Amino acid sequence: MNKDSTIRITTLSGGATAPAGFLAGGVACGVRGSGTIDLGLLFSEYSCDAAAVFTRNAFKGAPLAVTREAVSGGGLRAVVVNSGNANAATGARGVEDAYAMQRAAAEALGVEAGRVAVASTGVIGEHLPMDNIRAGIEGAAGKLSGGGVPFAEAILTTDTRTKEAAVEIEVGGKTVTVGGTAKGSGMIHPNMGTMLAFLTTDAAVEPECLRETLGRATDLTFNRVTVDGDTSPSDMALLLANGAAGNEPLASESPDYPAFAGAVEAVARELSREIARDGEGATRLVEVVVEGAADEETAVALAKSVVGSSLVKAAVFGEDANWGRVLTAMGYAGVPFDPDGLELWFGPVKVFEGAPVPHETAEANAALASGEVRITARLDAGTASATAWGCDLSYEYVRINGSYRS
Amino acid sequence: MNKDSTIRITTLSGGATAPAGFLAGGVACGVRGSGTIDLGLLFSEYSCDAAAVFTRNAFKGAPLAVTREAVSGGGLRAVVVNSGNANAATGARGVEDAYAMQRAAAEALGVEAGRVAVASTGVIGEHLPMDNIRAGIEGAAGKLSGGGVPFAEAILTTDTRTKEAAVEIEVGGKTVTVGGTAKGSGMIHPNMGTMLAFLTTDAAVEPECLRETLGRATDLTFNRVTVDGDTSPSDMALLLANGAAGNEPLASESPDYPAFAGAVEAVARELSREIARDGEGATRLVEVVVEGAADEETAVALAKSVVGSSLVKAAVFGEDANWGRVLTAMGYAGVPFDPDGLELWFGPVKVFEGAPVPHETAEANAALASGEVRITARLDAGTASATAWGCDLSYEYVRINGSYRS
Repeated sequence: MNKDSTIRITTLSGGATAPAGFLAGGVACGVRGSGTIDLGLLFSEYSCDAAAVFTRNAFKGAPLAVTREAVSGGGLRAVVVNSGNANAATGARGVEDAYAMQRAAAEALGVEAGRVAVASTGVIGEHLPMDNIRAGIEGAAGKLSGGGVPFAEAILTTDTRTKEAAVEIEVGGKTVTVGGTAKGSGMIHPNMGTMLAFLTTDAAVEPECLRETLGRATDLTFNRVTVDGDTSPSDMALLLANGAAGNEPLASESPDYPAFAGAVEAVARELSREIARDGEGATRLVEVVVEGAADEETAVALAKSVVGSSLVKAAVFGEDANWGRVLTAMGYAGVPFDPDGLELWFGPVKVFEGAPVPHETAEANAALASGEVRITARLDAGTASATAWGCDLSYEYVRINGSYRS
Repeated sequence: MNKDSTIRITTLSGGATAPAGFLAGGVACGVRGSGTIDLGLLFSEYSCDAAAVFTRNAFKGAPLAVTREAVSGGGLRAVVVNSGNANAATGARGVEDAYAMQRAAAEALGVEAGRVAVASTGVIGEHLPMDNIRAGIEGAAGKLSGGGVPFAEAILTTDTRTKEAAVEIEVGGKTVTVGGTAKGSGMIHPNMGTMLAFLTTDAAVEPECLRETLGRATDLTFNRVTVDGDTSPSDMALLLANGAAGNEPLASESPDYPAFAGAVEAVARELSREIARDGEGATRLVEVVVEGAADEETAVALAKSVVGSSLVKAAVFGEDANWGRVLTAMGYAGVPFDPDGLELWFGPVKVFEGAPVPHETAEANAALASGEVRITARLDAGTASATAWGCDLSYEYVRINGSYRS
C-alpha cells in the first residue's frame, strides 16, 4: 500500500480564505489603471505564526526587507499587496514607501504596524503612487470577506486568471484547512524563493515546523516551475498559520505532521501547476517527469533543464515531437547523465531507448497537442524521481514582453 | 598608448581559405533536400597542427569522438562537414557512420584516414544517408578552390547567411593570415565548447601554444554568445595551422605572439558577432558590456545573464527600454552584485545610477531600434570588464522552432 493513500485530502474552494479566521478583499486603486483590481488585503482574525521564503535574486524589491522583518517579529495579522508596480529599483524612497504601505494597512485594520507583510508586483523602477495605495487600502479594508477572489485578482499582472487552491485534512481529531493564492505569469524560474504565493492554514503549528514545511513544499513545487528562466526580484511565498482549528500545535514528529505537510504541498503543487499553465503566452502546461535517477538533486536538475529549454518549449508549441531537444537539454543540465541508459516518452509514445525507437511521428506529435503535455524520462541510475512544470513558448510570449510597458 | 594599438590587423576576404595553402569546396548531396549545399570539405595542402574545443553537453554527437581522435593524432589535413543531420543520438551505427565519412573524405583527398576531422549539424536522432554523403564528398573533392563561400554555405542550418572572417598580420617579418568560417543560429549558448567554427592560419605555431590560443579566444568570443540558452551536442571549434607562411614557429613567449593571439581573437570575435546577429529569428545584434567589475569572471557572468534573458531579448525586439529587466538578470547571475553602485545605459542614454535616472523613454527606446544594440553596465567594484553577444527574441524564433522538422 502506498503510504500517501493513508492521507485523506479533500479539495475545497475559497483559496487563501478557506481556512477559518482568514478574510480578504481587493479593490481598484488606479495603479494598473482602467479599473483593474490592483490592491489586496489578506487579514487573519487571530495572530499567526508565519514562515516566508524570498527571491534569491541579488536585486530585491523594497517590500521584501519589510516583510522579512515582519515575519521574524512574529504574530502576523495581515498581508497588503499591490500589482502594477513592483516598488523595486526605487532606492531609499522605495523602502519608505513600503513602510508607509505597511503602516496604512495596519491603521485601516486596527493592528500594530509590525504585524503586516507587504508585497508589490509589476513594473520595475517606478515609484509607487502612494495616494492611490492609501485610498486602495482603506477601500479594501472596508470590503473584507470570506471569499478570496478579489484578493486573488488584486495580485495579478500579466496573468490571465486567478490561482487559488484549498484542501481539508484531519489533524488530531480536528478539521484543518490549508488554502492559498498565487500569481505568476512572467519572470518565473525555479531555484529561488519563488513568485508571489500566500498560503494560509487554521492549524496550530510550531514555528520551526512551519518554516520546514514551507521550505520543503517550495522545493517540491514552486521551485520546480519555470516560465522564462527569469528570476523576479519581487518573489515571495508566505505561509500563515492562525491556529483557529484548535489542534495541538503540530511539530515535525507529530503523527499527523505528514498529513499537514502533504496538504501544504498539495496546495502549493496545485498553485504551481496553475502558474505554469498560465505562463505568459502559454497554450499548454508541460510536465516533465524524471525517474530512475541516482538522487533527487539529479532528477530535479534534469527535469528543470528540459522544462526550461526554449527549444523544447517552442517544439511543444508547434506540436513537433522533436525529442532530440529533450536529450540535449538533459545533456547540458550539469549533472551526470548517460543517454545510453535512457528511455524517453512523449505522452504514451516511447521515442528513445538508448537509440531512436521507431514510432509514428504523428502519434508523438499528438501527445503534444493536448492542454497538458507530459514528457517522461527514465534513467537506469537509481530510484529517485522529480517533476517540473512549465509551459510552451508562443508568439504571444514575445508579444506580451515586447510591449509590456507600452 | 594602448598596447593593442601596436598591432596592425588588416581585414581580408576569403574566410577559412584566406590563409595560404587552404582550399575548400561545397556541394548539395541531398541531406537537406531541395538542392541546398549541405556537404563541405576544407583541405590543407600542408600538414596542420590542430587544436579543438568541444561541446560541454554530456550528450555528444557521434562525430565529436572521431574528430577528437584525429586532432590528438596530429598532422590534420582536412575537415568534412555536413548539415541537415547532426548524427547525434544515433547509437553505435552513428559512430560507424562518422568513421565511414572520415574514410570517404580521406580517400577522395588522397590522405590518411586519421588526418580528417568530421562534423555534422542538423536534426538529432536520425541516421545519416551515407550514399548521399559519399557522393557529396566525391563531388566536393572535385571542386576545391581558394574561395570559401561554398564551404561556408555547406555548414549552415537555419542560418540565413554565411559567416566568414579573415585578417592579416606580420609575424617575424612574414605575413601571416588567420581566417575562419562558422555556423550558428539555434542551440547556441555560452559556457561550453561552442557552435561549429573552423579557424585556419598559415602561421607555424607550437602545438601547446595553438591550444592555448584557441582556448583563450573561445573564452573571449564564442563562449560569450547566446541565442537561446540551449547548448548543442554537436558544437566544436577547430584551429588549423599549416605553417605555409614560413615564420619561425610561434610560442607563447614569442614577441609576435600577442599579435597572433589578437588576430585569432579578432576572427573569432567577428564570427561570434555574426552568429549572434544571425540568431534564429533575430532582428538585431545585442552587445552587453559590463565594466568596473571586481574580476573578469564576475563581468562575464553578469554580461551573459543579461544577454541570455528572455525578457531582455523580448524587450529589445519590442524596442521597449525596460531596464528593470536588465537589473533583474544581473541580480540572478549568481555572482556578487550591488545595484546601489550600478550605472546603466541603453546606447548613449543613462537610465539608472543607484536609482532611476530621469530620461526620455523615447530616446532610450530609440537606442534599441538600430541593427546593433549596446547595453552598458558600469559597476564600482573594480577594473575588470567583459562583453557578451546575443540577439532579440522574435515571433520568428517561435515560428522556426515550432516547425523545424516539418
